[in-house]
Amino acid sequence: MTSSDKPGTAAAAPSDSAENAGNAGATSIAARDWSSAAADPQYRAAVVDLLGALAYGELAAFERLAEDAKLAPTLADKAELAKMASAEFHHFERLRDRLAEVGEEPTGAMEPFVAAYDGFHKQTDPSDWLEGLVKAYVGDSIASDFYREVAARLDTDTRELVLAVLDDTGHAEFAVEKVRAAIDADPRVGGRLALWARRLMGEALSQSQRVVADRDALSTMLVGGVADGFDLAEVGRMFSRITEAHTKRMAALGLAA
Amino acid sequence: MTSSDKPGTAAAAPSDSAENAGNAGATSIAARDWSSAAADPQYRAAVVDLLGALAYGELAAFERLAEDAKLAPTLADKAELAKMASAEFHHFERLRDRLAEVGEEPTGAMEPFVAAYDGFHKQTDPSDWLEGLVKAYVGDSIASDFYREVAARLDTDTRELVLAVLDDTGHAEFAVEKVRAAIDADPRVGGRLALWARRLMGEALSQSQRVVADRDALSTMLVGGVADGFDLAEVGRMFSRITEAHTKRMAALGLAA
Repeated sequence: MTSSDKPGTAAAAPSDSAENAGNAGATSIAARDWSSAAADPQYRAAVVDLLGALAYGELAAFERLAEDAKLAPTLADKAELAKMASAEFHHFERLRDRLAEVGEEPTGAMEPFVAAYDGFHKQTDPSDWLEGLVKAYVGDSIASDFYREVAARLDTDTRELVLAVLDDTGHAEFAVEKVRAAIDADPRVGGRLALWARRLMGEALSQSQRVVADRDALSTMLVGGVADGFDLAEVGRMFSRITEAHTKRMAALGLAA
Repeated sequence: MTSSDKPGTAAAAPSDSAENAGNAGATSIAARDWSSAAADPQYRAAVVDLLGALAYGELAAFERLAEDAKLAPTLADKAELAKMASAEFHHFERLRDRLAEVGEEPTGAMEPFVAAYDGFHKQTDPSDWLEGLVKAYVGDSIASDFYREVAARLDTDTRELVLAVLDDTGHAEFAVEKVRAAIDADPRVGGRLALWARRLMGEALSQSQRVVADRDALSTMLVGGVADGFDLAEVGRMFSRITEAHTKRMAALGLAA
């Protein structure tokens, strides 16, 4: 497959001035469509990295949720987790198809991120149904937060895809309900699950940092080398915001994070 | 949820004459819609059994295919198996939703069949990727054959659902291609997989017979107690036809079954 990209309007791209300070510069990528933005090979490489990372993340999530479905105490619970797994698979499909559409080999784009995701999942294998639910909820939420943060830095076409995939998450409300009921029934469960949620977040951060360190194009985009108006400190702030949102969600769930 | 069934045309049902011989009688159910056919409590119970059995079968298949995806040698292969798993999940959803639509609790309808399917999968846990592929192919094919056989004995509404779910299978062609390539590369693989396919069919038959023995309404439908023009010998012939089709498929695949 050759690079077909989106045949749309090659709109006059605003001139990419590195001198632009602050938000004015940040809009230069966000206002362009893919065919215009991808003319910059570094931006293009960063988006391919991003799509590859998201795609493998969804495929790995599919696999783990399907596996965790085995821990379900009832058939209805099993079906709910299977539904979440299937939704992740469809996200994977959209991301993979987009990679192919822009002329990239999806497997090649995903491969650099396999170790990080597999490492995360290996380190966070739930030992029971409730741990599986907390993991599904935490994973879904962090993914949503990250998609939303990143979307603002993307060209219009890539952003549309990322937001569409994001829109379709939120299946984890089911998990919230079940976890809350379990804590109500036995408050000691809350302590154990709070520790578990901390471990999940710690592993997620440590694997993310590994990815940021390994993937030049992706991290350069995140620190503003391409998408201007976005600096290194901003990446730190992004991680902080995601961690903070996680802490709030855990508290709302009855878990002191 | 109360019984809502399908609000369609309560068409004048042909009078159900037990004296009807041969095919003329067989059409009496096949020509009716659900609301007419389900007035017979035994037919209704048989269809609920059938939908419950198919629904749990799809959910169990989802789970096993997702698990087997872990054995995939490449990311592209993993994605293919995940796709099959996800398709099975969507079949499950349609069958479950139909149970709810006719006022049945889906979990209750599925539960009688859990032991048979779980027994089958426990006895046929693939030890490698190729065994997983052969199992996916054999399972998909037997399910298609069975759906097609049973469809002719159903009321128009149930038949439409069963055929729609059937229509959406056939993802297993991917498996055929991979297995054939593996046998070409190393003909000894064929001997091992032929044994494996025999074991799969043997387990499937033995679990089916268990279900037929346990489930009165379902087996009564199959032996003609409700859907007339269908006798005990016909059930035997159905199993024969399915086994024969299996044998032909295995031979086409390069496996002496």
